Order: sequence, then C-alpha cells, then structure tokens
Amino acid sequence: MPGKRVVVIGMGFGGLSAAKALCGKGFELCMVDRHNFHLFQPLLYQVATAGLEQEAIAYPLRAISRKWKDAEFLLAEIGSVDLENRCVLTSSGKIAYDYLIVAAGSRTNFFGMHSVERHSFDLKRLDQAEDLRNQILLMFEKASQETDPKRRSALLTFVVVGGGPTGVEFSGALRELILYVLSKDHPNISPDETRTMLVEAADTLLTAMPSDLSEYACNKLRGMGVEVLLNTRVVDATAETVALHDGTIINCHTLFWSAGVAAAALASGLPGVELAGSGRVVVQTDLSLKGYPEVFVIGDMASFVQDGSPLPMMAPVASQQGRYAARAIMSRESGGRIPPFRYLDKGAMATIGRSSAVAITNGLKFRGYPAWLVWLVLHLFYLIGFRNRLVVMMNWAHYYFSHERQVRLITADKRRSQS
Amino acid sequence: MPGKRVVVIGMGFGGLSAAKALCGKGFELCMVDRHNFHLFQPLLYQVATAGLEQEAIAYPLRAISRKWKDAEFLLAEIGSVDLENRCVLTSSGKIAYDYLIVAAGSRTNFFGMHSVERHSFDLKRLDQAEDLRNQILLMFEKASQETDPKRRSALLTFVVVGGGPTGVEFSGALRELILYVLSKDHPNISPDETRTMLVEAADTLLTAMPSDLSEYACNKLRGMGVEVLLNTRVVDATAETVALHDGTIINCHTLFWSAGVAAAALASGLPGVELAGSGRVVVQTDLSLKGYPEVFVIGDMASFVQDGSPLPMMAPVASQQGRYAARAIMSRESGGRIPPFRYLDKGAMATIGRSSAVAITNGLKFRGYPAWLVWLVLHLFYLIGFRNRLVVMMNWAHYYFSHERQVRLITADKRRSQS
Repeated sequence: MPGKRVVVIGMGFGGLSAAKALCGKGFELCMVDRHNFHLFQPLLYQVATAGLEQEAIAYPLRAISRKWKDAEFLLAEIGSVDLENRCVLTSSGKIAYDYLIVAAGSRTNFFGMHSVERHSFDLKRLDQAEDLRNQILLMFEKASQETDPKRRSALLTFVVVGGGPTGVEFSGALRELILYVLSKDHPNISPDETRTMLVEAADTLLTAMPSDLSEYACNKLRGMGVEVLLNTRVVDATAETVALHDGTIINCHTLFWSAGVAAAALASGLPGVELAGSGRVVVQTDLSLKGYPEVFVIGDMASFVQDGSPLPMMAPVASQQGRYAARAIMSRESGGRIPPFRYLDKGAMATIGRSSAVAITNGLKFRGYPAWLVWLVLHLFYLIGFRNRLVVMMNWAHYYFSHERQVRLITADKRRSQS
Repeated sequence: MPGKRVVVIGMGFGGLSAAKALCGKGFELCMVDRHNFHLFQPLLYQVATAGLEQEAIAYPLRAISRKWKDAEFLLAEIGSVDLENRCVLTSSGKIAYDYLIVAAGSRTNFFGMHSVERHSFDLKRLDQAEDLRNQILLMFEKASQETDPKRRSALLTFVVVGGGPTGVEFSGALRELILYVLSKDHPNISPDETRTMLVEAADTLLTAMPSDLSEYACNKLRGMGVEVLLNTRVVDATAETVALHDGTIINCHTLFWSAGVAAAALASGLPGVELAGSGRVVVQTDLSLKGYPEVFVIGDMASFVQDGSPLPMMAPVASQQGRYAARAIMSRESGGRIPPFRYLDKGAMATIGRSSAVAITNGLKFRGYPAWLVWLVLHLFYLIGFRNRLVVMMNWAHYYFSHERQVRLITADKRRSQS
C-alpha cells in the first residue's frame, strides 16, 4: 500500500531528480507538468540553430513514469497552491498532498520592457526554439530575394542580447550556421553581408567564469566574426529596429533575448510567501518554506543564499536541490534529520563553436578543444535516454565532419509578419 | 554560360525527379516551392503516430540545390502562370521561363463538406502531422483525467475516413500506438475502452489491390481491433461528433480524413486550360499543355489517361513523369523526339502494422512479413539523404524491438479547443 502522497510541480532538472530519488521509496508520487516531456534546456539553442531536431532533446515523461512504482503523471497547468489545506489547484482540479516539491523553474525577464518582449525571441520552451530556427532560415530566404541593400542588410542582422552561457553558445552556433551552411545554401549572400552582434551590459562575457576564460571566449567569438558589444544595453525595439542605451539604432529583424531570467509566475501563486530578487521564493536552509515544513521550493524558483549570494539559476543547482528535498522528506518520515543544503559547485562551461569551449571544474581551467571534449561528454552523459544520446551524437558527428546541418527546415506554415 | 531557363514549380516527387534529371545538362534551373524542404509524404502518417520525428522525412531543398550547377531555389507561393508571356507570378515577383514544369501536387478533397473540413485532420503538410500527433496524445491525457464515462469514451474514439493506403497505414499505426505505447503510458486506460474506426465508402479497402490482398488487410486490421466499416460514408461532423450516411452519430473528438484528393489550387491558375476530374489538368501524350508545348504538367496535378483511366495520384507516377518531362525538354532542344509517356506500374503496397503489409509487383503478391520487409527496404531506399535513412532505420529498429515510441511529445503550446 502506498504511503504519503508527494506532489512534484514541474519536471525540469529539479523536479525530475527529486522524483527519481523518491520513486519506489514507499510514497505515492504525483508529477505535474504543463508539458508531457522533460526538456534538456541547455541544448535548446542547438534546436534554434538547426543543429538538433526538437525530439532529440525532449523526453516523454510517461516513458519515465510508467517504469516507476506508485508514480503517476498529470498534464496540467498550476493555478496556485493552498498551503493551509495542503492542496494544489490545477487546470485539472485539486490535488491534495502530504509533501509538496515546487520546481516550476523560470521564465525570461524583460525587465518591464514591453517593446523588447513583443519583438524578440527567447528560449525557454521547445516551440520557441523551432520558431527561432524558422525565423533565421526565413530571413536568409527573404534576403536572397531582396534587392534593396538597406533592407537586405537588416534582414541579415541578428542581435543577441545577454553574454551569459546561452547568449555565448547561441551566437557562436549562429555564426557557424551562417559561415558554413547558410552562406553556401545561398550563393548570392556573402557572410560579410551578415552581422551577428552580441550585446552585454557588463564589461565582460560569462561573468561567472574567471576573467581569462571570459576573455578567451570573447576573443574566440570576435575571431569568428561576432561583433561583441560590452557595457552596452538594449533599451527598445520595434519589428525592424533595436535601440541601444547610447541612442544607436540597429536595423535588424531578429532580436534574441537572453539577458535575464525570473522565477516562474507560480512563485506569486504561493500566498503569503516571501519573495527575493527576480521573484524567487525565499527558502529555509532545508529548502522548505517558512511555516510549511512539508513544502519545498527548489531550482530556479528558490532563492537560496550560500556564501553571501543567491545560488545561480542553473541545472546543476536544481538537480542537487531535487535530490536534497527527496532526502529531506525521507529522513523526515523516518524521524531523522539531515544537515542544511549546500551546493557543491562542480564547475561551469560554455561552448563557443565546433571544437571550442571554456570550462572550469575544481579550480582547473580548460579552453579550446579539451574544454569542448569535456562539454561534449558531459552533455551526452546527462541527456536522458539512450536513443536521444544516439541521435544527438549522430547529428554532432555528422556536423563535425561535414559542416552540414540537416535540420534546416522552415516548418511553420504561416510566415511571421514581423518583417 | 547557362542555356535556356527551366522553371520547376513544386518540389515533391515529380518536381524533384525532373530537376534532378535536368541539372548539369546546360539549362538554367529555377526550383520554386512554398516550403524549403522536400517531404517524403508516404511516411507522414508515421510522424502523426509518433513513430518518426518530422525532421527524418523532410530534406532541405537548398542542401540539394547547392550541389547542382546553374540551379537555384526560390521559396515562394505561386499565384498564377502567364502562359502567353511565359512567366510565373509568385509572391516574390515574376519569373520568366523558356520551359515550365508544373508539379504543385494535390490537396485534400472534402467534396464540399465544410463541416467535415473544419472538424477533421488531414495529412498533406508536415505541420499537420505534428498537429495530429499532438491531438492523439492530448486526447489520452484528457481521457485519463476524465471521470464522465461518456465523455471519456468520446475522447478515446478515433475515426479514420478513407480505406486507401493512407487510411489503412494510419489506422494500423494508430492502433499499435494505442495497444503498445499509450495504454502502458496511461495505466488507467484499457485498450478496450478505446475505439479506432476505419470508414470506407466502397465495399473493400485498398481498391487498387487484388481482392485477396484487400481482404487480408481488412482481416489483419480487424484482428488488431480496428473497426472496419465498409459501404459507409461520413456525411457531417461537429467538434465532438461524426455523422454517418445511415444516421448513426459517433461521439468522437478526433476525425482523420483521407477519403479524397484533388489537384492543387494552382490548376485553376492556369488560364484557359482544360480541367478533368478532381480538378486535374488535361495533358497531351507528352505531358505538355495543348497549345503550349513548352509547359509540362506532371504528377498529381496532371490527368493522364492510360488504358482507359486516369493514372492514380501517387509518388511513382509523379517520379516517372518528372523524368519524362526532363527527357522531353532535352530532346526538344537537340531537335529530337521521344515516344509518348507511358507509366510503368511497378506495383503497390501498404503496411498494416509492425511486420505486416500487402504488396503486389509484376503480378507477384506478397502479404505479411515478406511484404513488410519489401516495404521497409523500398521506403528506406527512396528516402533522401543518408542521415535521414539512418535516423528512420534507428527509430524503426528501436520500435520494432521495444514497442516504444520516443517521439510522443505534445509540442504545441496552445491546447486545441476542439474538445
């Protein structure tokens, strides 16, 4: 007979690792997500740059849940949580819980700039990656038919905002797509006609990295032809322009925004809960909510201060917190206690292009080809499912040796009216 | 210096084989399509039943055109053709031609039943296959949360109209998806609760096949649990019902229509041209238009009568006509003549499920496992691109041995409001 009911909201890295640690441990496990798949978000940018098909980085949640005992999956949107009566209000009705793990992740933060939000692409969901891919390919199709030089140049200008890992990886992959694939697909477009701009508000890329690695990444990108603008902010946008803080107007039809994240909207659906910066939920040292020891908030949604600053919104933090929350619940049930959560930083990395990356782990720094190999192995290792690993590896091998990207399909039927 | 300009409209099987035969032969080749990929349509039903990812059966046209000399690709919609002035009017301007090959294919024919058109899914485009897949998966998600038995049963009822190859292959693949994947994904749904109905107006399935093979297919489908209704017509539909000609009302949220095809709308954009049944263009014995020997119409769009009846709308006919039109143009240029077009029927086949099919070739009939092997090899052989073949083979092998379908992702963000 199953025991207490644990509800996990959100099946990203945090929710999935919590659920995995709890399954088969005598709980009744209910996993809720608004999608029926787990998404390997760190590779979304590769879908957007035609390197991978979307199916290669998404894994059906029911393929996971059906193997687990006493676990069920529910496809639903979460409205709010009734902390007093211990139940979650979803689009598919009420779900009661004994323990709750909230891991709904984050959304893109446009810092209130509605014009930028309306006219830019971001990468949080799978369908956005496909939209962005369609957009990039379509801009080249339009440019190859455009005779007005000014308009043609605007169609071929891509502005990427945010010099974090997503912005760096996306602009590097985009530049390679242009250099090695699209400029060959379109014989009448020279790579020199195209512009890929990476705009960062700080004075360095990859601020979480040591400065020599940041500089390496910056030089590498510049060597590939990416225009890196540091100390620069985007303040406004229309369908065909991007405005910088110094008044510069860039003619551009494609704006990609990766300059900020905030906790998922559900954070404000937790009544009476204290919120920190970026709308993240303040948690106790055991990741539970103050006054509600049966509720845990983990991953991007949680603001957990360690060594003076909140932990970053990234997959390894979420995974570790998921496993911790599961352990906390199990030890609570057995009457034990576990020490406060502490994030073990195993390092950080960002890939810049084919066979180049920067990485730091245990104080060791890697750059160039060795770092790229580390990136490759780790990403394949963490990708769920043998078949997905195989498909990804095949795509990468094919691309590595041929500089060809097969996934360059414009799949949306309706043309975006942006331009 | 390139010679005369050949414009090919539509890059399906007909247009592609014509272009392939013409490239490098001294012509200036312009290929126009409203998609940037060639679609392997015979496998669309596998995308719709979560067996293949969409990228596996679509191949970027520019990956083809960039290898060809004096060939260019244009992404555009065709408005009409100015036969007198020898130019094509497209969404991207006018294109002049010396020779024109019109191969715009076909669209689904609802025979004027607007209610059916509005409330049914069809399979002509890649995005429709993804829509249909999302719908099937979503119906199971909704049913697993539904407590009203009548509504639950309607969510789990799937009506397939049309007993041709598409209807047979789709209903077989759907039934297997339900039996081996979805009923395991949803432990609270029994396959016996679900209904898969195949509705055909004639008194037999696969009318192009010999009667013993048709009967074999029918019995095989019935053995898998498909309810085959012969001599039955669908006459009306709402979002939640399907009406048959005898007044029967079926409660059902998913209606798939494959009961008719008609020539693409462009056929009526050829001014003054004689149209035959299904809006197909009447062509001369050399596939050219009467009075316009420089214009060829091929594939599904062309009505070519051979041995007393028009050739069927299928890929082999289109491919042979494409190659013929190319030869006709080349011999015209060299002052020669070639004999009238004649379709060489190499046979027909339809797969019914994992390791079962029916096939006829050169008078030889195959059924069951041998027919399925023939089907497998031929489809792999004709799939463009080594990588695509590999991905498809891997998916099929994985499915064959594990009965697992990894592509069961609900990728659309907005839920269909049909139900």
